[in-house]
Amino acid sequence: MGELLYEGKAKKMFTTDDPFVLRVEYKNDATAFNGQKKAKFEGKGRLNNAICTKIFHVLQQKNLPTHYLETISETEQLVKSVDIVPIEVVVRNIVAGSLAKRLGLDEGTDLGKTIVEFYYKSDDLGDPMINDDHALAIKIATEEELTEIRRQALAVNKVLQELFSEAGILLVDFKLEFGKLKETGAIVLADEISPDTCRLWDKETHEKLDKDVFRRNIADLPETYEKLLSRLEAVR
Amino acid sequence: MGELLYEGKAKKMFTTDDPFVLRVEYKNDATAFNGQKKAKFEGKGRLNNAICTKIFHVLQQKNLPTHYLETISETEQLVKSVDIVPIEVVVRNIVAGSLAKRLGLDEGTDLGKTIVEFYYKSDDLGDPMINDDHALAIKIATEEELTEIRRQALAVNKVLQELFSEAGILLVDFKLEFGKLKETGAIVLADEISPDTCRLWDKETHEKLDKDVFRRNIADLPETYEKLLSRLEAVR
Ligand SMILES: Nc1ncnc2c1ncn2[C@@H]1O[C@H](COP(=O)(O)OP(=O)(O)O)[C@@H](O)[C@H]1O
Ligand SMILES: Nc1ncnc2c1ncn2[C@@H]1O[C@H](COP(=O)(O)OP(=O)(O)O)[C@@H](O)[C@H]1O
Ligand SMILES: [Mg+2]
Ligand SMILES: [Mg+2]
Repeated sequence: MGELLYEGKAKKMFTTDDPFVLRVEYKNDATAFNGQKKAKFEGKGRLNNAICTKIFHVLQQKNLPTHYLETISETEQLVKSVDIVPIEVVVRNIVAGSLAKRLGLDEGTDLGKTIVEFYYKSDDLGDPMINDDHALAIKIATEEELTEIRRQALAVNKVLQELFSEAGILLVDFKLEFGKLKETGAIVLADEISPDTCRLWDKETHEKLDKDVFRRNIADLPETYEKLLSRLEAVR
Repeated sequence: MGELLYEGKAKKMFTTDDPFVLRVEYKNDATAFNGQKKAKFEGKGRLNNAICTKIFHVLQQKNLPTHYLETISETEQLVKSVDIVPIEVVVRNIVAGSLAKRLGLDEGTDLGKTIVEFYYKSDDLGDPMINDDHALAIKIATEEELTEIRRQALAVNKVLQELFSEAGILLVDFKLEFGKLKETGAIVLADEISPDTCRLWDKETHEKLDKDVFRRNIADLPETYEKLLSRLEAVR
């Protein structure tokens, strides 16, 4: 069944017989505040796998390049193996979370303009915000790769804003990771897109349909993710 | 003698008979850590005015646009009135201060590549680091202005690296402010360049010749600034 390559906070990554392919297993663990808050939720792995699968299918239909290959069980996907670019790419349409604090803006303010932020993926340093010059100086990406990452992040945003809108949901912000394909070095979207990595609000009520219900003890996590999944499945 | 327009931490700004011209008075106050540490030093205003005058003269010789007009007393300059762009532009050649913490790098590491950082000039928010998208979203500058600011900041860096090098000094990092001329809206370098706003190290010994001697209680501030001034005056 392959060797455990890496166990992260939300997923396990396994090798497969194909050196260019990995198996991802979605875990039931939830963490927040850089791992300081932790819990296990029966069904979380299944729900995130299903939601992420739906999203990768939609991105594939729109010809956006991703690591996704196929979903092989309730909690598992096959993905292309990549060298992860150690940048957490945050895309924001509406003010929330750390941006509200940074700029002194009210949560919920429509930004008018999409904001892309880069954070250096380093648990030791607490994922500090960086700019392009920092990324180039520490050689975690080239200028061309940063341009391509920004371009793809905005394209993903457009597709997902539409998808969620059809489900009556606002895409407030989300986090992406990109990687370089082992075979060609081409930049593709990797990791996951799920309620763990997005802020999603009901359009009318602003009810939260994402991990903030766990971070802020607002509602039951599996119930919330189940609600999100059925609203997404109702689209098309 | 004009009306006091603004009293800041290091300077007072006065109106003059000419609506396009301000008088700057350099104060003897030193502050650090966002104003939490404070002291007065006899001679500091005179020394910063002299050092800043020398620097603005050199930039003028190289045809870089600044707000500087003339030095009219031991502690006073006339400058063109601008609308300050509320961005503190930090230019870094060598790792020091907050960059060492942010990226987990050793102080003194040569960056190889110059890093430009933008901080939103807001005492209430603690001058948070921002990127171009943030600046555009809160409408403190246009895309063209950000490009021009970055271009001018790098040009100033080149001229000052050379000037300090001739004085046997490393230009580690420094902070700039830019403004839009009241008359034309053109972007020019404003505010001051002095040991209050630069990190300057002796090339051989790495002795600090800037406000870090006050921040970190390393040496007498006026003696240090006097030493810097005489080394700069010895150039050409
Ligand atoms: N296609 C891929 N190839 C290689 N590594 C990947 C791929 N997709 C995601 N990863 C990495 O695998 C790990 C996924 O596990 P996760 O639980 O999200 O970890 P973390 O706790 O670091 O966020 C992450 O480090 C992520 O960067
Ligand atoms: N040419 C100029 N026209 C208008 N304002 C200026 C000009 N040059 C600098 N300033 C502003 O004047 C103030 C200078 O005083 P200072 O003591 O440095 O203030 P602060 O405590 O805000 O740093 C700063 O707010 C600076 O942005
Ligand atoms: Mg992760
Ligand atoms: Mg100042």
